[in-house]
Amino acid sequence: MSIRAAIVGPTGFTGLYLIELLRRHPGAELTYLASRRDEATNITEEFPQLLGRVDDDIAMCKPIDPEAIAKAADVVFLCLPHVASMEAMPGLLDAGLKVVDLSADYRISDPVVYEAAYGHPHADTTNLSQAAYGLPELFRDDITEDTLLVANPGCYPTAASIGAAPLLRHNLVKPTQIIVNGASGTTGAGRAPKPHLHFPIQNEAFVAYGEIGAHRHQPEIEQVFERVAGQDVPIIFVPHLLPIDRGILTTLYFEPIADDIDEDDILDAFQQAYEDEPFVRVRPDMPNVKHVRDTNYCDVTVRLIDSGLGDADDLDRPRRIVVFAAIDNMFKGASGQAMQNMNLLFDLDETAGLL
Amino acid sequence: MSIRAAIVGPTGFTGLYLIELLRRHPGAELTYLASRRDEATNITEEFPQLLGRVDDDIAMCKPIDPEAIAKAADVVFLCLPHVASMEAMPGLLDAGLKVVDLSADYRISDPVVYEAAYGHPHADTTNLSQAAYGLPELFRDDITEDTLLVANPGCYPTAASIGAAPLLRHNLVKPTQIIVNGASGTTGAGRAPKPHLHFPIQNEAFVAYGEIGAHRHQPEIEQVFERVAGQDVPIIFVPHLLPIDRGILTTLYFEPIADDIDEDDILDAFQQAYEDEPFVRVRPDMPNVKHVRDTNYCDVTVRLIDSGLGDADDLDRPRRIVVFAAIDNMFKGASGQAMQNMNLLFDLDETAGLL
Amino acid sequence: MSIRAAIVGPTGFTGLYLIELLRRHPGAELTYLASRRDEATNITEEFPQLLGRVDDDIAMCKPIDPEAIAKAADVVFLCLPHVASMEAMPGLLDAGLKVVDLSADYRISDPVVYEAAYGHPHADTTNLSQAAYGLPELFRDDITEDTLLVANPGCYPTAASIGAAPLLRHNLVKPTQIIVNGASGTTGAGRAPKPHLHFPIQNEAFVAYGEIGAHRHQPEIEQVFERVAGQDVPIIFVPHLLPIDRGILTTLYFEPIADDIDEDDILDAFQQAYEDEPFVRVRPDMPNVKHVRDTNYCDVTVRLIDSGLGDADDLDRPRRIVVFAAIDNMFKGASGQAMQNMNLLFDLDETAGLL
Amino acid sequence: MSIRAAIVGPTGFTGLYLIELLRRHPGAELTYLASRRDEATNITEEFPQLLGRVDDDIAMCKPIDPEAIAKAADVVFLCLPHVASMEAMPGLLDAGLKVVDLSADYRISDPVVYEAAYGHPHADTTNLSQAAYGLPELFRDDITEDTLLVANPGCYPTAASIGAAPLLRHNLVKPTQIIVNGASGTTGAGRAPKPHLHFPIQNEAFVAYGEIGAHRHQPEIEQVFERVAGQDVPIIFVPHLLPIDRGILTTLYFEPIADDIDEDDILDAFQQAYEDEPFVRVRPDMPNVKHVRDTNYCDVTVRLIDSGLGDADDLDRPRRIVVFAAIDNMFKGASGQAMQNMNLLFDLDETAGLL
Repeated sequence: MSIRAAIVGPTGFTGLYLIELLRRHPGAELTYLASRRDEATNITEEFPQLLGRVDDDIAMCKPIDPEAIAKAADVVFLCLPHVASMEAMPGLLDAGLKVVDLSADYRISDPVVYEAAYGHPHADTTNLSQAAYGLPELFRDDITEDTLLVANPGCYPTAASIGAAPLLRHNLVKPTQIIVNGASGTTGAGRAPKPHLHFPIQNEAFVAYGEIGAHRHQPEIEQVFERVAGQDVPIIFVPHLLPIDRGILTTLYFEPIADDIDEDDILDAFQQAYEDEPFVRVRPDMPNVKHVRDTNYCDVTVRLIDSGLGDADDLDRPRRIVVFAAIDNMFKGASGQAMQNMNLLFDLDETAGLL
Repeated sequence: MSIRAAIVGPTGFTGLYLIELLRRHPGAELTYLASRRDEATNITEEFPQLLGRVDDDIAMCKPIDPEAIAKAADVVFLCLPHVASMEAMPGLLDAGLKVVDLSADYRISDPVVYEAAYGHPHADTTNLSQAAYGLPELFRDDITEDTLLVANPGCYPTAASIGAAPLLRHNLVKPTQIIVNGASGTTGAGRAPKPHLHFPIQNEAFVAYGEIGAHRHQPEIEQVFERVAGQDVPIIFVPHLLPIDRGILTTLYFEPIADDIDEDDILDAFQQAYEDEPFVRVRPDMPNVKHVRDTNYCDVTVRLIDSGLGDADDLDRPRRIVVFAAIDNMFKGASGQAMQNMNLLFDLDETAGLL
Repeated sequence: MSIRAAIVGPTGFTGLYLIELLRRHPGAELTYLASRRDEATNITEEFPQLLGRVDDDIAMCKPIDPEAIAKAADVVFLCLPHVASMEAMPGLLDAGLKVVDLSADYRISDPVVYEAAYGHPHADTTNLSQAAYGLPELFRDDITEDTLLVANPGCYPTAASIGAAPLLRHNLVKPTQIIVNGASGTTGAGRAPKPHLHFPIQNEAFVAYGEIGAHRHQPEIEQVFERVAGQDVPIIFVPHLLPIDRGILTTLYFEPIADDIDEDDILDAFQQAYEDEPFVRVRPDMPNVKHVRDTNYCDVTVRLIDSGLGDADDLDRPRRIVVFAAIDNMFKGASGQAMQNMNLLFDLDETAGLL
Repeated sequence: MSIRAAIVGPTGFTGLYLIELLRRHPGAELTYLASRRDEATNITEEFPQLLGRVDDDIAMCKPIDPEAIAKAADVVFLCLPHVASMEAMPGLLDAGLKVVDLSADYRISDPVVYEAAYGHPHADTTNLSQAAYGLPELFRDDITEDTLLVANPGCYPTAASIGAAPLLRHNLVKPTQIIVNGASGTTGAGRAPKPHLHFPIQNEAFVAYGEIGAHRHQPEIEQVFERVAGQDVPIIFVPHLLPIDRGILTTLYFEPIADDIDEDDILDAFQQAYEDEPFVRVRPDMPNVKHVRDTNYCDVTVRLIDSGLGDADDLDRPRRIVVFAAIDNMFKGASGQAMQNMNLLFDLDETAGLL
């Protein structure tokens, strides 16, 4: 029997890719689209690539009516912006639906940190306390058939966490010297036109963005790092915007905890951490956003740098570990991971529809 | 009286932009093109954009004959690859020409470091010892009318050095905790087709490249940093390749030397360092490779990060200084800076032809 | 029982997409890769995106040994360049394999025209005479379970033919006034690096290419047009190169055969021609290469232009029909259509693995 | 003495490039920026690339006060949108200023055609009747020191007209069979963010746009063609949008007027027409938008197609002339041509600041 899935707020890019992924899924199907918009919205007009690919009766978005959705669906992918998401959540859960939330509202478990990051108090702390953070490679056991609400991780936190976890878990690096240098494609900024994403402005451009040191993904990354490391792990996070559609590459810099750690220790930690993970590829070569496009993979590589070029100089070089992690921000960084979480919620093969 | 300039090895991208810059220069003119190639090479066929913009008798490249060049020119822009450059250099200098060398051969003053980085011994250590490193914003006094040979800096070293110098000079940062995260457009990799630069491979891609920790620009950056700081400054340098034509953005991470350094100290250092520099813009906003394209500017911004989002957490965050520096790798990173150096060699207005 | 498929010559882009399509196919599987190369070739090193997605024993390419292939496979996707393809064909057919040929060698049924277009005589006229031209939307009945060899159409011919067929079939346009203005992404030019496809040359570029009036797809288009129209249909074909990875847009200009033809007649012809076609979308809006990317769709729109802006002038305007047809040159223009043809060869659902 | 130039409406892309061109001009200088906006507008914040390149007192835009402008400037580049332009024009002319208008308001000399194309009556027919159409290569004599108002041509009309004029003037082609297939970069669509120009929508896209057969540049092209040909020349014009910043390529299809016209006749017509034109390059190879970028050139090539591939077939092929014309839509298609027109208005060297 096929899982029936609804998408609430499908007119953003995450909605588009959820629709495409549901079309490929052998055990789930799209049964309902619901939008906050007043005007009639046919999803195939929003996304011309969907013409002929969504049944007519589903393509026309309906209002967000939890009872009606619950009749048509088993699970909701909630793709509203933050705030709107936590306003809609209680009704959807009360109607008996499971929810995978793609907004930021249920990712940060501490309401105080949430308020500091997002600028307003959390309005649904009850459900917040029960939300599972949906990063299966690190916290798979949190998501079972009994789970009702999964907070789908942010795109940067997904790549950074998969890249850092083996080092943090085995206590291989100093927890106060971590730099997360990130670069993202433009779909991460959403579908609404913005001046800095106007084609002739963003094309051939490359720039760091936002208030440096205050990106909202920073506390989310730190929450994951702390949980994995078992201690506080403050980071420096600087995001950049790439002139491409899709993809995130994070370049992470670490200081080894001890001098006797060598590259083999580190590679072992990565191999061991991910040898059974269907969506993590520990690569010999450099992860490239192009090579994970349209996939749910996180590609990872690690290097230990301990000397300069041929040691011609006599510099006392600091040893550093550099990790590269690449994902498709729309797949593993959003809709693909949401599908992976849905699979876990219903005890399906975790990779169903994703390989 | 106009300076007469020759370009030796003009069929690469640096040659193209030198030709374009010489066309705009009020006090210099292109008088000679010389190539190693056996087959007849008309520069307007190599670069179709030059059709009608180079005199016919100059457009057809001649052999590299130092005596003939010296009759036609006062200065040579030497655009050969490394090794070829140091083979050609003695003859050009002996013929009485001044030379601005755009290869890497005369950038690293220590032949031992050069050999470690480039894999072969230096073949012209005599001239190497007399070469001036042509980064006027830091070492302007090295280039005078008596200088015969200027080593034009590498593209990454230019951006990194201008970004780091105010902090290093005033001893504001720890010299062993510097990370240089760089990203470059594709013209930096030269004009010869290569598999990883094939359009359908590099388009929509983003990837770190090379042997991490062993880029040849690393010892060059360290040489500049050491000279500015007055002490060894080993760095971690990781370059990435952008799917754009032109531009370099370096994101530099530093640890402040002391807890009481605040953002005003740092900004002061930058303002003071560059207030009279015609080609450095200390910006309030983020440097963007697009905003320096086709210019000789280096755009710089600095931020001090000392806390997380609203300090909601009680993490003991490490304070970090992050500097962003953007250049056009073909202008300030190569041909534009070479023109700036030529202006200094002949005591012209340093900005002639460049603003 | 699953169809077992081999790919001969898999290191080009068509090979990559065939592998990806076979992974999604519910009734076929990749069992063999064979390459002409002497050196050992692991397909996951050729295409880093395939790491972990191809079984190790298949990933390592084997020699082109028809008997060995025939033991492992039911069908071969032949992805060699032209000439090499017709050299390999007889052996593959003799070994009892069915072949979908993605080269140009079996597309043009008249050996004299083939020789004129490709510059050398056809070396396998026996099999040429039995090859089916694999454009199912126009010639579906040619491909049955008894067919042994399918010539997979060229990318431009696919888009142009689907765009023109309804007009030609119903004799709605003059057969001597047809202009096919085409624009293609860069994957159409293959995977080998070439000077004009070097990233910094082709990026931000747009240019017509080749010897105008002598593109090899022109006689192929004319062959299809003639067969559909039942008369000679000479065309003017001008291809352009887009700075994108994938996609072809053809803009076709026709002169109506009679003055009384109106837009409804034309739209009817298109609707009728394609209402049951799973891979043709007659759109209300303009076909965009981006909206067919990664799909096997051909998106088509038609417009009748019969007057200028508001008829303010009194010009006696010529009436023209303009058709726009967009495909992904790697899917409907190559590997996707090849899969569609394989489905027909084995009497599978024509859309299996493609929707 | 330097020409003093004002820009009215400088916050669009034409304003940016006018500012850059004025900086390079040896005989003109920017003295005034005026904007319709209520809020204070510093042009260096609108265009971060201008930081440090515009004097502070000029950078801050002032209100559109014709008397004040006339005190500070000799000429106005009027960069307002259509309608706004013809509202501002009388005041500027009355104040004694010369005006180069970059809007569409004074390009179409017949008010009836203007109204049909732009959807509202012309509000300044007096000045319209005296406006010179500023395409110097075709109508240079129209612009003299006595001219007060120059209508700067549209981008498509510039490329199409330069491409077609030699054929039309010498009556070499049928005037009713002309197809203008155009493709433009995104800067042509202006600086305001729009959904179809959102980076992740337009990147990797290619599509025809607008109501086909009803683009406002069509009557403008026809007006030029008629004037050159001395007879009505109705055309078919189809524009496409390229995923690049800048550049227009028009591919024009013509039917020769007689069978005995050969390629030499045609080439002669082009060579003769443009041999003394500083900004038209009749090329042997294909015009490429990349090769005219940042220049005021129009690159042109012409081909006669009179047979298929090797004439293997016996088709009675129609002979066609195909012309390719490329410009930078921001230079020769807008701001560069405006500067060229300014030079003519003040009897300066026509190429001043443009080569």
